[in-house]
Amino acid sequence: MEVRIRLLKWSAGLPVAMINEKTAEHFGVHPNDRISIRTNSKKSEELIAILDTIGKFVKDGEIAVSSEVNSSLSLTNGQRADIFLAPLSESISFIKKKLVGKELKEKEIKKIIEDIVGNLLSEAEIAMFVSAMYTQGMNLKEIIFLTKAISETGEEISFKNKIVVDKHCIGGIPGNRTTPLVVSICAATGLIFPKTSSRAITSAAGTSDVIETLAKVEFSSKQLKKIINKANSCLVWGGGLGTVPADEKIIKIERMLNIDPEAQLLASIMSKKIAVGSNHILIDIPFGEHAKINKEKALRLKKEFEGIARYFKRKIKVILTDGNHPIGKGIGPSLEMRDILKVLNQDKDKPLDLESKSLFLSGEILEMTQKAKKGKGIEMAREILESGRAFSKFKEIIEAQEGKIKKLPLARFKKNIFSKKAGIIKRIDNKNVKFLALSAGCPTDKLSGVYLHVKAGDKIKKRQKLMTLYSESRLRFNQAKKLLKKENIIILKQHN
Amino acid sequence: MEVRIRLLKWSAGLPVAMINEKTAEHFGVHPNDRISIRTNSKKSEELIAILDTIGKFVKDGEIAVSSEVNSSLSLTNGQRADIFLAPLSESISFIKKKLVGKELKEKEIKKIIEDIVGNLLSEAEIAMFVSAMYTQGMNLKEIIFLTKAISETGEEISFKNKIVVDKHCIGGIPGNRTTPLVVSICAATGLIFPKTSSRAITSAAGTSDVIETLAKVEFSSKQLKKIINKANSCLVWGGGLGTVPADEKIIKIERMLNIDPEAQLLASIMSKKIAVGSNHILIDIPFGEHAKINKEKALRLKKEFEGIARYFKRKIKVILTDGNHPIGKGIGPSLEMRDILKVLNQDKDKPLDLESKSLFLSGEILEMTQKAKKGKGIEMAREILESGRAFSKFKEIIEAQEGKIKKLPLARFKKNIFSKKAGIIKRIDNKNVKFLALSAGCPTDKLSGVYLHVKAGDKIKKRQKLMTLYSESRLRFNQAKKLLKKENIIILKQHN
Repeated sequence: MEVRIRLLKWSAGLPVAMINEKTAEHFGVHPNDRISIRTNSKKSEELIAILDTIGKFVKDGEIAVSSEVNSSLSLTNGQRADIFLAPLSESISFIKKKLVGKELKEKEIKKIIEDIVGNLLSEAEIAMFVSAMYTQGMNLKEIIFLTKAISETGEEISFKNKIVVDKHCIGGIPGNRTTPLVVSICAATGLIFPKTSSRAITSAAGTSDVIETLAKVEFSSKQLKKIINKANSCLVWGGGLGTVPADEKIIKIERMLNIDPEAQLLASIMSKKIAVGSNHILIDIPFGEHAKINKEKALRLKKEFEGIARYFKRKIKVILTDGNHPIGKGIGPSLEMRDILKVLNQDKDKPLDLESKSLFLSGEILEMTQKAKKGKGIEMAREILESGRAFSKFKEIIEAQEGKIKKLPLARFKKNIFSKKAGIIKRIDNKNVKFLALSAGCPTDKLSGVYLHVKAGDKIKKRQKLMTLYSESRLRFNQAKKLLKKENIIILKQHN
Repeated sequence: MEVRIRLLKWSAGLPVAMINEKTAEHFGVHPNDRISIRTNSKKSEELIAILDTIGKFVKDGEIAVSSEVNSSLSLTNGQRADIFLAPLSESISFIKKKLVGKELKEKEIKKIIEDIVGNLLSEAEIAMFVSAMYTQGMNLKEIIFLTKAISETGEEISFKNKIVVDKHCIGGIPGNRTTPLVVSICAATGLIFPKTSSRAITSAAGTSDVIETLAKVEFSSKQLKKIINKANSCLVWGGGLGTVPADEKIIKIERMLNIDPEAQLLASIMSKKIAVGSNHILIDIPFGEHAKINKEKALRLKKEFEGIARYFKRKIKVILTDGNHPIGKGIGPSLEMRDILKVLNQDKDKPLDLESKSLFLSGEILEMTQKAKKGKGIEMAREILESGRAFSKFKEIIEAQEGKIKKLPLARFKKNIFSKKAGIIKRIDNKNVKFLALSAGCPTDKLSGVYLHVKAGDKIKKRQKLMTLYSESRLRFNQAKKLLKKENIIILKQHN
């Protein structure tokens, strides 16, 4: 039996074909199968499409195809074709090889990544790949091949400059929005700093969410080059550039499975740096008992980052920082941007920890790029910040990204939280403060979040203001207040 | 921000909601996310739905919901609601626990299976579960809990009879269609034999595909009971009964990933037997150098089957048979049915190996159920077959399943394959003969397949007819002929 083609004016983003359930049964195919469609004409061609089954819309013996199928096969309505279950991609066997703990070769990893980019692997199959990396791990050689494959399957952006700077902080610490400050300080010296960031995946805000309170962050690679021409730096969302399409698809599945294999974490970060041609890279790994990453893992990651950079001949500095506490006062896109503007503006109530960490990171980059002499980086960074040159550069970036500096409003609903007793603050729980900000509406409602009035080590009195909760939705505000009652966010030292 | 509900007269089989991409971005949600929809009314209710994003069909700030959402929340058009990213199911953490090699508790396995049945796990998440079972394995205790959970989450079918018989053959051997013969022989003695089978997954035919050449195989559990009332046995498709919904979903993913974890293989078989109340079970494990299963695995599976049966207090007999060669002459739904009818009819050219294996298996069941004295089972089975009582019973079953016995036609296209030289046949390759039948159109084109005129051990002359290839489609016929040239299907003994 053959099927009759029915052309649809319907674009699905990838080749999709629909048949009804009876026809599917006849051919022994199922929804989500990849089928091979072959026309019976002389120049016999073939195309792999994802199959969907549908009720009455498609008649028995008919196959409705999306415009992507038509553009590859140049079909006519009513034309006859034969359908087959497409053979499994070879990459499935490579994924299985990793799943049973074997080392993958470069060409095997490359094939998997190419098939992910080419829509030849389903979400379930990508999930098997993520599971395999998670359970079996990858050695440095495999991680390097993965990084290479991810950066090679996307668009490349190159700059003529000898020095191209980049930084990355492995997330998980609330607040900690050093990137806009570090980029502004370093770029003020003329360094090329094409910084791409992510949106929040599981956190209250990603750098892109924060920048979006003032400017656009989604640009094509062509637009990115224009921004760099204007401001010699940028603060854009990496997802829109098309430099690492495989990474985006893998991250989508990781997010669904809530697992983050180390190999993919490393390849994800480094492939983006490779794709934009960065050659002086600073990596910040906050670690600690109350951070996502413990000391052992931090040291292992450091070594792996250095190994990847060595292979790709990039200069790298990996620093381990204290990840036990939130950094800055605001947690949530808008509240974090308010903190950044306070530091840039040198306001009296600027968050000192955010400022000093940003100066430290900037200092490292200024020394690495030989803009500052050894040991003089922080000093130079401070001078750039205090002189207002960093703020000018930040304004330039925001304007190049079609935004402007403005005072950000506070959210509609607000609640102050006071201490019940006096004491000394032992720590502020990273995880619980994040959940509080998420339940208040972060990162989607940009004005929501938590503002911390105190920090670890502070001596507090009874009924002192500890934090303020902000939300734009009454429902979420109430939900967050409920969480406040249940969770211990600000932890006092125990008296003996 | 809230969304406005738009009700659709659209049933998706499970709760699905659609918003446009802009709204999705605003809420920070993505296609395939599970979202929680909450109405703002006083009796605040919540429902988890799968999110889809769509172009122009849905307006900004609008959410279109399938009828399944509406029936649970009783919404009105234009009603306001809030959407949240639904919290991850707890079962994700149990799957991760297995992925890192830890033993799962009964309640953890139960939760995973319940979530699979309740549509709370996506295909990617089920793929992670399948990957975890595949890479880490499960111990007997876990396999028992898995079997229990799979059979408990479906419909149960019970019979009042003290003895309920079942059999299962672990597939992979072309031909080998003993089930219709064994069921007919044993049921002729009055035994209750509610046999459910699968369709082909990766083979040229499943028992259901073969029975379908004469009768219907899809029935509800209620209809199944009626069939058993008429014929005290049946030969139906297990998938339609709703007894093991989790199994069907897991198998779909296994098929996609092309992996078949042992734990799931065992649980899949045994949960179906438990669900229909079978208490005398015969398991046939064909093994060998040229079979899917080697001796070591066959012996391990035997032990595990026995362990599961012991837990559920079912009588079981597991036999290991020779799996190195195809059984019977026909391979493909219709050709296999022709073989079965020849055996039932005691035709001169009946396939002797299929007959003798069926008599052996029937004999085991007759002895296990004490219908025959020890050592007298095969004899009794032969008497039932030769007397025509087995054929009468088979007719009864086919008629109870709304079919009738008829002569089956041969396919439109046919090609005889002859030997190029004289010699002795060493073996007929299971895998290659399967691929040949698949490429000819099996299992969907029921008339296609391969008919073997010779078997292992036969002395053949030059230009002797070895096999016949059948197909209904010219395209597939040509494809199969190409394969014939490439692959070595009938292997001769080497002369020294």
